[in-house]
Amino acid sequence: MDLNADLGEGFGAWRMADDQALLGVVTSASIACGFHAGDPRTMATAVEAAARRGVNIGAHVAYPDLVGFGRRPMSLSAEEVLTDTLYQVGALAGIAARYGAQVRYVKPHGALYHAVATDHQLAEALVEALVLWPAPLALMVPSGTVVSRAAAGRGVDVVAEGFADRAYLPDGSLLPRSRPGAVLQHEAAVVDQALSLASSGTVTAVDGSTVAVPADTICVHGDTPGALSLAARLRGALERRGFTVAPFR
Amino acid sequence: MDLNADLGEGFGAWRMADDQALLGVVTSASIACGFHAGDPRTMATAVEAAARRGVNIGAHVAYPDLVGFGRRPMSLSAEEVLTDTLYQVGALAGIAARYGAQVRYVKPHGALYHAVATDHQLAEALVEALVLWPAPLALMVPSGTVVSRAAAGRGVDVVAEGFADRAYLPDGSLLPRSRPGAVLQHEAAVVDQALSLASSGTVTAVDGSTVAVPADTICVHGDTPGALSLAARLRGALERRGFTVAPFR
Amino acid sequence: MDLNADLGEGFGAWRMADDQALLGVVTSASIACGFHAGDPRTMATAVEAAARRGVNIGAHVAYPDLVGFGRRPMSLSAEEVLTDTLYQVGALAGIAARYGAQVRYVKPHGALYHAVATDHQLAEALVEALVLWPAPLALMVPSGTVVSRAAAGRGVDVVAEGFADRAYLPDGSLLPRSRPGAVLQHEAAVVDQALSLASSGTVTAVDGSTVAVPADTICVHGDTPGALSLAARLRGALERRGFTVAPFR
Amino acid sequence: MDLNADLGEGFGAWRMADDQALLGVVTSASIACGFHAGDPRTMATAVEAAARRGVNIGAHVAYPDLVGFGRRPMSLSAEEVLTDTLYQVGALAGIAARYGAQVRYVKPHGALYHAVATDHQLAEALVEALVLWPAPLALMVPSGTVVSRAAAGRGVDVVAEGFADRAYLPDGSLLPRSRPGAVLQHEAAVVDQALSLASSGTVTAVDGSTVAVPADTICVHGDTPGALSLAARLRGALERRGFTVAPFR
Repeated sequence: MDLNADLGEGFGAWRMADDQALLGVVTSASIACGFHAGDPRTMATAVEAAARRGVNIGAHVAYPDLVGFGRRPMSLSAEEVLTDTLYQVGALAGIAARYGAQVRYVKPHGALYHAVATDHQLAEALVEALVLWPAPLALMVPSGTVVSRAAAGRGVDVVAEGFADRAYLPDGSLLPRSRPGAVLQHEAAVVDQALSLASSGTVTAVDGSTVAVPADTICVHGDTPGALSLAARLRGALERRGFTVAPFR
Repeated sequence: MDLNADLGEGFGAWRMADDQALLGVVTSASIACGFHAGDPRTMATAVEAAARRGVNIGAHVAYPDLVGFGRRPMSLSAEEVLTDTLYQVGALAGIAARYGAQVRYVKPHGALYHAVATDHQLAEALVEALVLWPAPLALMVPSGTVVSRAAAGRGVDVVAEGFADRAYLPDGSLLPRSRPGAVLQHEAAVVDQALSLASSGTVTAVDGSTVAVPADTICVHGDTPGALSLAARLRGALERRGFTVAPFR
Repeated sequence: MDLNADLGEGFGAWRMADDQALLGVVTSASIACGFHAGDPRTMATAVEAAARRGVNIGAHVAYPDLVGFGRRPMSLSAEEVLTDTLYQVGALAGIAARYGAQVRYVKPHGALYHAVATDHQLAEALVEALVLWPAPLALMVPSGTVVSRAAAGRGVDVVAEGFADRAYLPDGSLLPRSRPGAVLQHEAAVVDQALSLASSGTVTAVDGSTVAVPADTICVHGDTPGALSLAARLRGALERRGFTVAPFR
Repeated sequence: MDLNADLGEGFGAWRMADDQALLGVVTSASIACGFHAGDPRTMATAVEAAARRGVNIGAHVAYPDLVGFGRRPMSLSAEEVLTDTLYQVGALAGIAARYGAQVRYVKPHGALYHAVATDHQLAEALVEALVLWPAPLALMVPSGTVVSRAAAGRGVDVVAEGFADRAYLPDGSLLPRSRPGAVLQHEAAVVDQALSLASSGTVTAVDGSTVAVPADTICVHGDTPGALSLAARLRGALERRGFTVAPFR
């Protein structure tokens, strides 16, 4: 099982999470590329630390919206999604070159993630960027999304992402954040869901049914001290149960 | 002889020069990478047109200053010059990947150009970026500058740039733009200086002396209709005199 | 009758329209405030020229999207529309203070215009900004829009905007730009529609019916030489027919 | 005695200091205006809290450099300093209008502060902006700087700023941050220097001499928990010694 987190989400003088502590827990780091966060030096600091620990480096591509942290839906054309993605992947590859590291995967961020999860044209534009990039790139997204299928259709490896701390609907999609109970509050429930994702590729949905959620990687957070300690506890639980926590291949 | 021009210097809805017309004249295109100009779509339009015509593609790297078009001196650290350069080169490589094209060279723009022409630390930081990038990159700068020597010292190919429309001082440097006569006004004088650069690698300095100005490429402009027609006339004169105008290797 | 145009839509080294020529035609200038275009110096140049000619100065407020020129729909909250509007109006007032000039009105630009034309919450947020600003501000928008009614409900003066070069639907709304015939192609038709707006406050809709379009101001464009000459011709026609072309009060 | 601090130095999702806690200590708040920090909502949050507590609101104007937090020297023209300042003051006034509050003063930030402290042309441009603004604005800068004298010469009120935690040279200027001992490390020394500034308008310079440092306001920091508790301790010490800590008039 792979564990992934968002890294390098500062900008200039600002910091978001404790990247160094997170890198002691995760095996894949999705690094902001300047559009929602991440100036070149912030990116370099994140890439250097990830490369030193053998953590996978991914491009966390986003809409060009620093003020809104890439979370505000914007109407971008497929052409814009394609060129914005290639720009961001390339920029991260430039920073990675400093440390002899490679960009291994792409994860869409925030509002862009939501757009490609359901919009066929934008999903295909994102996948097209991965196909065009001269080195292999995997796509990290939840299984069953439009963009996941678009990637599979173009021969792009999908690293299926599961969530340990989010409630699932019976169809395998997430309960929206605006709904009560969307985020699991009890640490034990989060750890249990992680173990379920790892052992059987299923979770218990909000209606009590068992739903298949294939997961190659579990997303963890580090933006609060509590989130960070939960991530560490989750990793510990996986390892004690015999799962190898290692970068996806 | 190579002819180079700045391309893709628009941003979003804005345009600067007639890129398509310029590409009928030049053999190397220095493309803005988002810091002084050039959003991803503007870059893509410029790269596509350059690649289609077999024109060399270069990264026109700059200070992060859209309002000032990269022309305002800023105090950047060597670390910032290094990471900003890698970011911009990578971003352009991402766009170039769309067309199966490669970034062949780097040309510093505006205030960054002036900084690396004389500052050893910043010059070495810029050159370090070229060394770190995994594919070969040439550096396009005037011969005799600090950055030119720094590149040579690290085994980076230098494409020496000469100016057909600028007055030279006896030491081979340019008469500053703030001084009268800095820019040659007569078309015939510009064409003559281009022919002199191409045939003997010399120009006549402001004091009448002959000064060596090695030139692998001559910089032309396209930001006015007059500049564009002059560039075309200059190319025609070179070709009539038997010089091959072709992309540098 | 007032004639209005968008002004100061350059940014840094870039220019969009021939502002000086436009100011010979229009009586109200909607000036970009830095979010879709317009850095402080560009704004200052536009304000100075408008103030010198006695042209009304308005804040052309927009989404924060330089790359997209404020034309890409974005999901902003009412809180964001309110604070973004106050910020932009204030910024323009700061520039106007240099010339002893006042901001007289607000006109929403691009995607923000479309949003407030139909969204009640965002319309009220925009109007709230005008109410909070300590000096009187009119709102320049088409009659019949949600934001127009919201302004009237709060006691804000509405300067109703009509379009001479756009086709109208029978309900008084514009035929969307994506539809054929959305923009009137013949100069004579444009001039006729301007005269109809001025004389009777009506236009002939696409189905041949007559529809009421109250208009205190007509929007003209200056982004091409053709647009500029058409604007001048339109003004001439109004004056020859006895209409006074003057800034709205 | 007035106490001032930098406020609203976040941007979008990022935060810098604990503004709410700082507002329990200071009497003047210098609020970032979007150029080095401070998007409209961040500004609104800071202004609202300051206005509610009766704290003076000032515009913390800066160079347009988000990545560098306004700390990197840039070569701006006097024209740019003038228009950038008017833009930022106006923008803050727009946000302040939401709460019926006024901008009372201007404080230059970072590299702009250093520039106007010694450069006559830029100092005069900054002061000119304050003169042009239609309501009274004071200028908060150290006594004895070029910009302080420029303000006095134009009839602009100067709020002289002293530093409790910085070492002074015998000429009344600050020991540069790059030099050892530039920042006082012991809390007691900081409090002593604040009391000295308040009681006699002097400090003990690095060579042991007594130097006059007129101070209407003392600058405190809140970017670390330690800084915040020191600021509170400093205020307590002033009050126990009988000084009234209150907003400057």
